[in-house]
Amino acid sequence: MALVVQKFGGSSLATAERIRRVAERIVETKKQGHDVVVVCSAMGDTTDDLLDLARQVAPEGSPRERDMLLTAGERISNALVAIAIHGLGVEARSLTGKRAGVITTGSHGNARILQMDPGRVRRALDDGEVVLVAGFQGVSQDSLDVTTLGRGGSDTTAVALAAALRADVCEIYTDVDGVFTADPRIVGDARKLDRITYEEMLEMAACGSKVLMLRCVEYARRYHVPVHVRSSYTDRVGTTVSGSIAELAPERAALTGVAHDRSEAKLTLVGLPDRPGYAARVFRAVADAEISIDMVLQNISRSGSGRTDLTFTLPKSDGARAVALLESRRDALGFAELRYDDRIGKVSLVGAGMKSRAGVTATFCDALAEAGINLDLITTSEIRISVLVADTDLDDAVRVLHTAFGLGGTEPAVVYAGTGR
Amino acid sequence: MALVVQKFGGSSLATAERIRRVAERIVETKKQGHDVVVVCSAMGDTTDDLLDLARQVAPEGSPRERDMLLTAGERISNALVAIAIHGLGVEARSLTGKRAGVITTGSHGNARILQMDPGRVRRALDDGEVVLVAGFQGVSQDSLDVTTLGRGGSDTTAVALAAALRADVCEIYTDVDGVFTADPRIVGDARKLDRITYEEMLEMAACGSKVLMLRCVEYARRYHVPVHVRSSYTDRVGTTVSGSIAELAPERAALTGVAHDRSEAKLTLVGLPDRPGYAARVFRAVADAEISIDMVLQNISRSGSGRTDLTFTLPKSDGARAVALLESRRDALGFAELRYDDRIGKVSLVGAGMKSRAGVTATFCDALAEAGINLDLITTSEIRISVLVADTDLDDAVRVLHTAFGLGGTEPAVVYAGTGR
Repeated sequence: MALVVQKFGGSSLATAERIRRVAERIVETKKQGHDVVVVCSAMGDTTDDLLDLARQVAPEGSPRERDMLLTAGERISNALVAIAIHGLGVEARSLTGKRAGVITTGSHGNARILQMDPGRVRRALDDGEVVLVAGFQGVSQDSLDVTTLGRGGSDTTAVALAAALRADVCEIYTDVDGVFTADPRIVGDARKLDRITYEEMLEMAACGSKVLMLRCVEYARRYHVPVHVRSSYTDRVGTTVSGSIAELAPERAALTGVAHDRSEAKLTLVGLPDRPGYAARVFRAVADAEISIDMVLQNISRSGSGRTDLTFTLPKSDGARAVALLESRRDALGFAELRYDDRIGKVSLVGAGMKSRAGVTATFCDALAEAGINLDLITTSEIRISVLVADTDLDDAVRVLHTAFGLGGTEPAVVYAGTGR
Repeated sequence: MALVVQKFGGSSLATAERIRRVAERIVETKKQGHDVVVVCSAMGDTTDDLLDLARQVAPEGSPRERDMLLTAGERISNALVAIAIHGLGVEARSLTGKRAGVITTGSHGNARILQMDPGRVRRALDDGEVVLVAGFQGVSQDSLDVTTLGRGGSDTTAVALAAALRADVCEIYTDVDGVFTADPRIVGDARKLDRITYEEMLEMAACGSKVLMLRCVEYARRYHVPVHVRSSYTDRVGTTVSGSIAELAPERAALTGVAHDRSEAKLTLVGLPDRPGYAARVFRAVADAEISIDMVLQNISRSGSGRTDLTFTLPKSDGARAVALLESRRDALGFAELRYDDRIGKVSLVGAGMKSRAGVTATFCDALAEAGINLDLITTSEIRISVLVADTDLDDAVRVLHTAFGLGGTEPAVVYAGTGR
């Protein structure tokens, strides 16, 4: 007998019919003799619909009240799944995030879990009940107000519960079959991965893979929770996220996949004084506005000019705000010109195998060059290479790299000879 | 400066536009210098829509989970009104029934308020905030599960809060202008009442007036809460429910109005043994099935037969269940035949003035007889006369009585001469 946490996304719960199917899957797991804890997202587009209503009522509105509003969505889906389980003759109990002991920071709309206190969940399990916990929500440690965890929050709830309950596995049911070597809508022979380490999944998520959100994977890694990403429409085995690259036998370290991201824009400050502290001042101004910077490039000073160019990427959605902010401080920051480009895309190759394989960077650049794709900014980590390309080249870049590294079909990833990356 | 509790019904909150208007009214009251506590029902048909979804998911379903589901409706409307108030630059804080201290029995779907613990509401008022409390919901004293209060529950929440906070008035905003002498859809010259005592309002509610639910009026009477029923679409003064008939000066005791009710059916057991205990056994069986009986008539025993007929009325919605129940026990209960008639209506005349006026019953019966309307069962209280008529005669009966007692227009109620009722 195992303890299984199962999380179902909004599209898996969009109609009464789908809710009944989800309930059947839960009951099946329960009848196999397992303890089952279920985390539900809000039905279909409920969260977006509620946000729309809020904007119609008042364009700004209080973050605390918005959280009060949004958490209703998970209460509804949760209670409906409980009712459906009851309809199949199995005892079930739904709990709000608060009653399930999800204790968070007070940052409304983007709270972080500080502590899990799953005593009530445990007692309900001991009573033989299926326990349903409303995802995406918790309670502020300080004010006791209800909070939400931000995008992908229900996945984080599920993983945090699995960690606190020492569950055997956290199953994330979604509308895809698992984690793929690339987006199957772009790459015809993209292959579903059977396993992936936490670090690789973190890099994939950070580079645009939308299957799991970054914060959820970080949580799973910290508490060693095996996560099984799988389809809610089939019984097929999905992708298991577990283990660290440090524990991987060298022969198992492979190239994982190609991720892409269309959500970033590029901002360049031309003619910034090339003296200590100027770049820091720019980053401080941007950080104070709670805008995240991803890639950074500072050009070498043009000889004798004492001036340099600073380029970085940031979310497109923050672009207008960043431009206005920096322009308003042009004199203090001392740059000559600001260039903003949101017609870019980022493509990344991820894999633990990169460490031990020479020539990966060379192959990467060669493949793109042969396809006539210009690279902009390039950044690397121990297990990742990312470059910016024109947005119109992005799909091609994904396909070219996927092929160049032999990630498709059932072929193993190719090992490259050469020296250095 | 007064403390005002304002309650808004679902139709007043059905759209973003209406929610903004409700917020404007709240802010206006606040800006007049009053402390304001607001109770919101769920938006429009939300509660019915959620119940529909629950039935699609599983026809039966757990009452506890249904309450979890339904309470989401008031969370949504409550948070949206808070957001709208914020949008007008005024601080507002929404609380669930639980956090507002609405402590109830554990009877899911029809819980009763046991205790109010409004400390948190009081503190938020002291902070200068408008406080919004989700109506219709509370928390079970024993299980700490969320509960709902049944039909009209938001009105009860508002009155209970007003009582606990010693509010100056509880305003119930609805889609009619107040309490009328009869249903204006039936009686053209029905008149809005300026004042009505608790007892009269209780009788009106018990006899089919839908403006306020019985339980809410009982609560208001017990705690002497003045209730102001008024339209959410106008600024007109509505009807104030306050005071007891015992305190009324005799000259102020009038005939209040004519109420009608289409929701009952009539059940007759023919040939029941006319011996002690047989009628009690019938009523016990019906009560055990949680079916409420309203009017009762036991005919005089037919001479020498030792048999009698027992007639009572009950909600139509429980009719099929009651018939099946009694038929299944025909032998034990000893009746010869069961007759069921759901094509009836009840019409009632209510008024504290009835006590001091002779001939009211005679005028009542004469008026109906002159209009060719047959009476069935008749029951009276100190301040009410009710009769059953054929459902097709009901509207006529309401009009005839309204005219006979001069309740319409701006005329005062007529005083009738005669002896006895």
